[in-house]
Amino acid sequence: MQRVLVKISYHGGQFLGFQIQNQGRTVQGYFEKILKRMHKHPVRIHPSSRTDRGVHALEQYFHFDTELVISPTQWQYAMNRALPEDIYVHDVTFIDDDFHCRYDCVGKTYRYKIYQGAHKDPFQAHLKTYIPHELNIDEMNKAAQLFIGTHDFTSFCSQKTEVESKERTLYESRVIPTQDGLDFVISGSGFLYNMVRVIMAFLIEVGKGKRQADEVPMILKAQDRNLVPHTAPAEGLYLERIYLSEAELIEKFGSEIRIHKKKSLQNSMKHIDNNG
Amino acid sequence: MQRVLVKISYHGGQFLGFQIQNQGRTVQGYFEKILKRMHKHPVRIHPSSRTDRGVHALEQYFHFDTELVISPTQWQYAMNRALPEDIYVHDVTFIDDDFHCRYDCVGKTYRYKIYQGAHKDPFQAHLKTYIPHELNIDEMNKAAQLFIGTHDFTSFCSQKTEVESKERTLYESRVIPTQDGLDFVISGSGFLYNMVRVIMAFLIEVGKGKRQADEVPMILKAQDRNLVPHTAPAEGLYLERIYLSEAELIEKFGSEIRIHKKKSLQNSMKHIDNNG
Repeated sequence: MQRVLVKISYHGGQFLGFQIQNQGRTVQGYFEKILKRMHKHPVRIHPSSRTDRGVHALEQYFHFDTELVISPTQWQYAMNRALPEDIYVHDVTFIDDDFHCRYDCVGKTYRYKIYQGAHKDPFQAHLKTYIPHELNIDEMNKAAQLFIGTHDFTSFCSQKTEVESKERTLYESRVIPTQDGLDFVISGSGFLYNMVRVIMAFLIEVGKGKRQADEVPMILKAQDRNLVPHTAPAEGLYLERIYLSEAELIEKFGSEIRIHKKKSLQNSMKHIDNNG
Repeated sequence: MQRVLVKISYHGGQFLGFQIQNQGRTVQGYFEKILKRMHKHPVRIHPSSRTDRGVHALEQYFHFDTELVISPTQWQYAMNRALPEDIYVHDVTFIDDDFHCRYDCVGKTYRYKIYQGAHKDPFQAHLKTYIPHELNIDEMNKAAQLFIGTHDFTSFCSQKTEVESKERTLYESRVIPTQDGLDFVISGSGFLYNMVRVIMAFLIEVGKGKRQADEVPMILKAQDRNLVPHTAPAEGLYLERIYLSEAELIEKFGSEIRIHKKKSLQNSMKHIDNNG
């Protein structure tokens, strides 16, 4: 048997999410259908992250095991030929049997895109979230910075989250202006269910002046989801990068990673993160 | 009764086209459903152009007649509230009863977007057509220029086209490089069924070196569709601008319009153009 690592991206707008469902379009559904046809038996794929309905992936990984003798280039070609236009296989490599896409994922970066302006733009539909109000980007960024570090994120995740520990470490959390709005970029050891979208919803409230940046430490400490009642829509959310080794994380985040590395690695072995 | 002019744009990716069908998503279907609900009886809308399945509109107009007393701003608000994310109403105005969106349309501009590069990009799906081959943009532009003027476009439209005259006047036809590929911009008095997509397909062949720019006059003269066997996909095609008066055309195209104006106005009254 050969373990195969596949690097993909997809436009989430027309998917029910990554994970296979009884009915409807899913990313897993397309790949497992292709693999079943090639193997003449079902083959399970294991992703680094399970993105929700409408969430995009600029970079996502999964692995599977095969008895077929096919080169990485041929795998890529065969899958891209059979996939719909909104999924693309960027790379295929062979990896060791002890590598696991979910358990060896030591960090992730998400990006959330917002556009503004007087008019809604149908060509941004499913790609960016529209906020007509003026937003104070400096205040939003000030608030975003306060999430960096190791915290219990109970106040900033879905109440449906079922994991042992809600402690996560964030290496990066910032709001940057773009040509037509702003991006929120957040990187960490792992993310709880809806965590990025709940933090984003809070930052939007800060941008509108309805909440204050300096509330963040108090809300984190309270461990109470009722303090942040909103969740930003899925359509602006992108899984941007998956870190499959400590080395990649250290290269990107340098000294920060040296502080939080151990805890984040333990975390990633202990629980299964859904997505942002 | 009040005649109402509505300026819209839409992302064509998830529509069967502008024109209403028995089943499936259409632009006309959404508007007529909203208008029926408001009027308690069916109301027909009349567009300037009927775009095909997958074709986008950056600018499109339609009109309808109403007995309801609602201000333009209220019409815009009511429609945008009820529309899906991939259609947007930009403007609503009241117009005279003798104005007709189709018959008063004296010109249109289409844009066709192509992206290139080593990898297909799922975020360009339904927005631009992917051509992996290198294309000679200078040669494509040289060929494009040769379509300008008044010609019989039998060789460059669908064989299904059923109109009396296949003569049309083009004011503009050029290929311009973009950051990730090229745009083809074409403006004229009117367009035959699939005309922009057939010309685009020919220009792509020129870009690949399979056809020569200087074949254009001969192919136009032959009036034989078999000489251009391809049609470029719908997904890169945008209806970019509708000209509802001579003044707008003259402002945009200056001296050229003075040469072709009379003929193009006659054309637009005589036949019904489908789309590019």
